[in-house]
Amino acid sequence: MDYTPYFSKNAMRMKRSEIRELLKLVNQPEMISFAGGLPAPDVFPVEELKEIMNEVMNREGRKALQYGPTEGDPRLKEELIKLMAKEGISATPDNILIVTASQQGLDLLGKVFIDRKDTVIMESPTYVGAIQAFNSYSAHMETVECDDDGMIPEALDDKLRYLFERGIKPKFIYLIPDFQNPSGVTLPRERREEILAIAEKYKMIVVEDTPYRQLRFEGSPEPALKSLDKNGRVISLFTFSKIFLPGFRLGWIVAPSKIIEKLVMAKQSADLCTSPFVQAVTYEFLKRGLLDKQITLIIKEYRKKRDHMLAMLDKYMPKLKGLKWTKPKGGLFLWVTLPEYMNSRELFMRAVEKKVAFVVGSAFHPHEKCENALRMNFSYSSFEQIEEGVKRFAQALKDYDAEIKRKESTVITP
Amino acid sequence: MDYTPYFSKNAMRMKRSEIRELLKLVNQPEMISFAGGLPAPDVFPVEELKEIMNEVMNREGRKALQYGPTEGDPRLKEELIKLMAKEGISATPDNILIVTASQQGLDLLGKVFIDRKDTVIMESPTYVGAIQAFNSYSAHMETVECDDDGMIPEALDDKLRYLFERGIKPKFIYLIPDFQNPSGVTLPRERREEILAIAEKYKMIVVEDTPYRQLRFEGSPEPALKSLDKNGRVISLFTFSKIFLPGFRLGWIVAPSKIIEKLVMAKQSADLCTSPFVQAVTYEFLKRGLLDKQITLIIKEYRKKRDHMLAMLDKYMPKLKGLKWTKPKGGLFLWVTLPEYMNSRELFMRAVEKKVAFVVGSAFHPHEKCENALRMNFSYSSFEQIEEGVKRFAQALKDYDAEIKRKESTVITP
Repeated sequence: MDYTPYFSKNAMRMKRSEIRELLKLVNQPEMISFAGGLPAPDVFPVEELKEIMNEVMNREGRKALQYGPTEGDPRLKEELIKLMAKEGISATPDNILIVTASQQGLDLLGKVFIDRKDTVIMESPTYVGAIQAFNSYSAHMETVECDDDGMIPEALDDKLRYLFERGIKPKFIYLIPDFQNPSGVTLPRERREEILAIAEKYKMIVVEDTPYRQLRFEGSPEPALKSLDKNGRVISLFTFSKIFLPGFRLGWIVAPSKIIEKLVMAKQSADLCTSPFVQAVTYEFLKRGLLDKQITLIIKEYRKKRDHMLAMLDKYMPKLKGLKWTKPKGGLFLWVTLPEYMNSRELFMRAVEKKVAFVVGSAFHPHEKCENALRMNFSYSSFEQIEEGVKRFAQALKDYDAEIKRKESTVITP
Repeated sequence: MDYTPYFSKNAMRMKRSEIRELLKLVNQPEMISFAGGLPAPDVFPVEELKEIMNEVMNREGRKALQYGPTEGDPRLKEELIKLMAKEGISATPDNILIVTASQQGLDLLGKVFIDRKDTVIMESPTYVGAIQAFNSYSAHMETVECDDDGMIPEALDDKLRYLFERGIKPKFIYLIPDFQNPSGVTLPRERREEILAIAEKYKMIVVEDTPYRQLRFEGSPEPALKSLDKNGRVISLFTFSKIFLPGFRLGWIVAPSKIIEKLVMAKQSADLCTSPFVQAVTYEFLKRGLLDKQITLIIKEYRKKRDHMLAMLDKYMPKLKGLKWTKPKGGLFLWVTLPEYMNSRELFMRAVEKKVAFVVGSAFHPHEKCENALRMNFSYSSFEQIEEGVKRFAQALKDYDAEIKRKESTVITP
């Protein structure tokens, strides 16, 4: 039976993500993968959680296994309010919605803001899951150029002026200000203020996605956009996936209460509530003050891994004009820009043959640009794997370069 | 700041559910509530789960706390395949998608099938969460009349003919064939076959929602629609919420693989994956053969509660023309039809004053019909609460009836 006539227009736009398709090639023995966005599982606080789960089951098992309120566990919200106060974000319980991790936050934002063909503004490159979520509501995605300091305010202003002149009023600006996925770069304070001023000028809503924000290896934190928000323009997405663990599927949204009200209704129809059990366990973890300890542990581990990956890149990578990579001050990823004559998908096929994988740059652009770039994850692999993987990667790159140059010289020779 | 201009058309249609608003009145001390759809928490297998959680954390904690595949844990899928085989449903892993409970299943169906103003067919009355989910995609909902044996096939045929004659081709027929929410009624085998034949005639997809199916107190099961499906027209939603517990947010969809493929993409953008931890724990629970034991326990408990509620209704309810209630053979709910001159919202306000609550019938109709009906839950309250609650309810009903009759006689008297 052909189901095509039954599918919605939105469904017809959905396609398997490029990451997924290419990652099928990665499931091979001996493969070293810098492709995923996975946290290092060896720092998960397994022993503490065993004990907490036991306590939660003893103390409130019957409640934790029952349905809970759509808005989330009020005790967890109180802990989150304290957590955010440290970031200069003041929130009341009606500014918070507990979500089934940030991906659900993105989906709910799509549901609440995006009509078919509405425009949203994103960084180039940007998070593949945001592209997928907004695409599933048939959004038109416009990108703004970024450099080593993130989104360029002038480019944003130009883009908005261009769109407004054509009668297009985007629904929001989506950005990942800290240790961006995929680029690893961070927006400095000055740019944060400029971007908020531009948002004010064009009366735009700003969505800040902050999964890596607390994973800073050095320097002092830039202020969260939400902490600079004077007029209720900023919606912030937070998640426990990278600072605690992803397997609970737990995050939260901070927004003006009128927006939270709509998001609550959207969540009610999306999954009724996030697991009260995982909320109770996470509440207990926070109440015991274990999150700070956990974040310190993760930072220590990831900083070493980032240093190691950067050192290995310096050691093994060929010197090619245009070849460069970002030096992230936190997070999980770095972004490699290849010489312009290269295509990262071509390189990917060669790298996979050598048993090393990354994600091609075009996956991070709504219109599949960034073809001469790629993302590497440094949080998941072991130190040995990082060295061996970078070595293989560098070899694949050298071979690919030689191949291109051979072909070019073949063409030139009559 | 006014956010209205930013919201999507779908968001503008969303409203707080009537249940939610009325239930705010229910949060009072001394209130006996037959309103919620909550399972009885005293049968949750807390001790078994404590032990299983411990084992899962010891055996595979780091894996269970990591991200997992969007499609779900393959081991859990294998257990579900066995479970469904007992129901005469044959499925392979690519016919199954693990979801964050059935409410997510409804949302994903909305995303994959419903364009704004598309028509879907539902029972009257039907599940309030399905109304909310389809409404969040701006579906137009058409209802089909039901009686004590569920959806009336002739009425379905008439409705479809009427719609097709007007060029309207609905996207699917949604129904809850077993111990329906809210009515408690079950579709007999003959009607199931007739409805599938009508679906075949009009080339319709059928969505069967089965949360209460396994909770049968007496008689033999009617075949699942999926087990009668010859041409890949049926999509079945299953959930652990009522047969195990709701607090894990875990369910599954069975559908033709081409549909599952689209649902996987929709789920990926909706929440990436369902918690691998709760999947691992539930897998272990199934593998140990504990689910059958659990279902037996629930049935035993709920059967007694249903019997008790029916006995109390017989004992306390006044004899009024048109007043009747269903006698469900399973599930969690029964449906009371009031005399036509009554309005269940009026009755609700009077009942709440007497400290007893239910859900008004109009909540279960997309266009808020069923005004002289209401839903009562018998799974959650204790035996004592059931007697006392029914007594209060009956008194509220008598007072309301007397009030109406007094007014009528006042009107008649010049």
